[in-house]
Amino acid sequence: MMSQRIEKLREKLNEFNCDATIIFGIQNNADIKYFSGADVEGVLVVDKEEANLFVSSLYYQSALDAVKNNVILSRDLEDVANFLGKKGIKKVGLDFFRLSYKQIKAFDGFEIVDFSNQTLILRMIKECDEINQIKRAAFTARNAFIKIYPYLKPGITEKEIADELVYQMRKHGAEKEAFDTIVASGANAVYPHHMPTDKKIEDGEFVVIDFGANINGYNSDMTYTFLMGEKTDEKKKLFNAVFYAQLYSTEMIAPGRTKAGEVYERAKKELSKFGLDKYFIHGLGHGVGLEVHEFPYLVPGNDIVLQPNMVFTIEPGIYVPGELGIRLEHMVLVHETDTEIIAFTPFMEAM
Amino acid sequence: MMSQRIEKLREKLNEFNCDATIIFGIQNNADIKYFSGADVEGVLVVDKEEANLFVSSLYYQSALDAVKNNVILSRDLEDVANFLGKKGIKKVGLDFFRLSYKQIKAFDGFEIVDFSNQTLILRMIKECDEINQIKRAAFTARNAFIKIYPYLKPGITEKEIADELVYQMRKHGAEKEAFDTIVASGANAVYPHHMPTDKKIEDGEFVVIDFGANINGYNSDMTYTFLMGEKTDEKKKLFNAVFYAQLYSTEMIAPGRTKAGEVYERAKKELSKFGLDKYFIHGLGHGVGLEVHEFPYLVPGNDIVLQPNMVFTIEPGIYVPGELGIRLEHMVLVHETDTEIIAFTPFMEAM
Repeated sequence: MMSQRIEKLREKLNEFNCDATIIFGIQNNADIKYFSGADVEGVLVVDKEEANLFVSSLYYQSALDAVKNNVILSRDLEDVANFLGKKGIKKVGLDFFRLSYKQIKAFDGFEIVDFSNQTLILRMIKECDEINQIKRAAFTARNAFIKIYPYLKPGITEKEIADELVYQMRKHGAEKEAFDTIVASGANAVYPHHMPTDKKIEDGEFVVIDFGANINGYNSDMTYTFLMGEKTDEKKKLFNAVFYAQLYSTEMIAPGRTKAGEVYERAKKELSKFGLDKYFIHGLGHGVGLEVHEFPYLVPGNDIVLQPNMVFTIEPGIYVPGELGIRLEHMVLVHETDTEIIAFTPFMEAM
Repeated sequence: MMSQRIEKLREKLNEFNCDATIIFGIQNNADIKYFSGADVEGVLVVDKEEANLFVSSLYYQSALDAVKNNVILSRDLEDVANFLGKKGIKKVGLDFFRLSYKQIKAFDGFEIVDFSNQTLILRMIKECDEINQIKRAAFTARNAFIKIYPYLKPGITEKEIADELVYQMRKHGAEKEAFDTIVASGANAVYPHHMPTDKKIEDGEFVVIDFGANINGYNSDMTYTFLMGEKTDEKKKLFNAVFYAQLYSTEMIAPGRTKAGEVYERAKKELSKFGLDKYFIHGLGHGVGLEVHEFPYLVPGNDIVLQPNMVFTIEPGIYVPGELGIRLEHMVLVHETDTEIIAFTPFMEAM
């Protein structure tokens, strides 16, 4: 078990006046990995004295290998509830956003406290080793990109680019893609989550490549946009608007003072100078770590203050229906007094 | 919208005496794809007259392109609740297993009916086109495997096998891996979900390769186990026990009569003849379709009757701690009177 992390969770238990919390990690097991150190699916029960990992037989051996003790062979929430009952636990903190209605109902016999998002809030501040892992995931993706860069010529298809990029990420050490690699050219880039097709890249098109690597459970996430061919004044204007929106919103972050929502507004303001803010249809960014999307979210109205050792993306984009899309995404690490850009967007292609 | 599928959902609404149901598809959007035809994240609201897709601005254009009408720009459950309220809807069917506590609470003003698993139950019976898509995903994975087969020699690492297999699946048309490809050799195969390492394959080891392709949203899932080198009597015995467990449990299925749990028991019984059932630590299989794991689950006590047009895996395995693992997985399509094995486990390596 990751005892220092669990201690921080116990501080939260005190804050919320709870005796225990239940971390449910089936399918998405990021919290389980973070607090137990075991890459298994299961249910982690943390009370004030101990932490116990409940797993099915499928993960029992892996869990034992990773945490040695306090592994219980069952994933049944009734068993978890009985376990807590026997320990005399009364107040249980549960995540109302992430546990299903049925899962919460399994703890009807207890006093239930809304403990929503508390693990995400802890995971938001990265440890030194986590930052190194995220950087490794970012540099691996960037190196893979450099490898395929010479092949980005008119005639290659979106899917060919994606296939080669994923292959190179894996060859460079990635365990897998952090998420489905996006390669979107011309009007296809109108869809922020476009999946690569057999469409060939044509001269004069913007090409959006959104990709990341997963290594040791940690992720990277970045987006490059290239223009194939002639840089017309109109295209320069569009690209530069997004580029400056990214640059100025990154630059304005004052660690410990700036709120996540303010950074979003800064990017939006920059785009509005060019009349392009109506084409900016998503949030400005999101935390990156054990999950590709995690706290903090750089979205309107989010009052979370950006603090040292947070890692998040800044990714303004514009999507002009029927015509084109442009998105530039880099990852930002907040330091004590300033911010570091991880795997800078290569702007050899900037105008 | 997929009107025939929505009609079937309405029959369920009548059965449960509901006015409407809400299908929540954020992150896992399989139900949204299935019932709306749009590959977007969102919330689908189906009542007795119409179906409306609520999406954020990120997916608005994609949703409109796919379904033309009945797309509403909001993903806020309060807006969904207001929408239902204005329509005079009173009884809402919700999935208690898959909606979070907070999500269910958004419908406090309504009479809530437990509508759990109803979409999974509908999706369990595949349509003709879906079966073709699943087969395509299976054949693509198999063809990729054939391509890398000549390279499976001692000295190659687990990760190299996985990297090449994923690359070939993509080159053969897969949009991505259906799930993280597993290559586990020797004692690493003790862990059913082992992630590929830089360990080299050695002579005399069993190598478990569990892989699948995703195409057009549909998945395949199969596992081959090979023995590198000499086929000793002891190893033959172990392999054949798993092989016969797979074969006899597949063979015993009588469409419309056999229950999912009975097939599990048949495989277990076969393994027990060799004293190996204690090493069989997971379910025997699961449905495959828009999700890699879906209904029906071939697990102890599951009374679901196996019916025509179900597609599921049969994957017995043994995991001997500290020593080895063997798993054989093929996909089965149930017909009116018999069963078809999709992408048969190649048993050129069988003993």
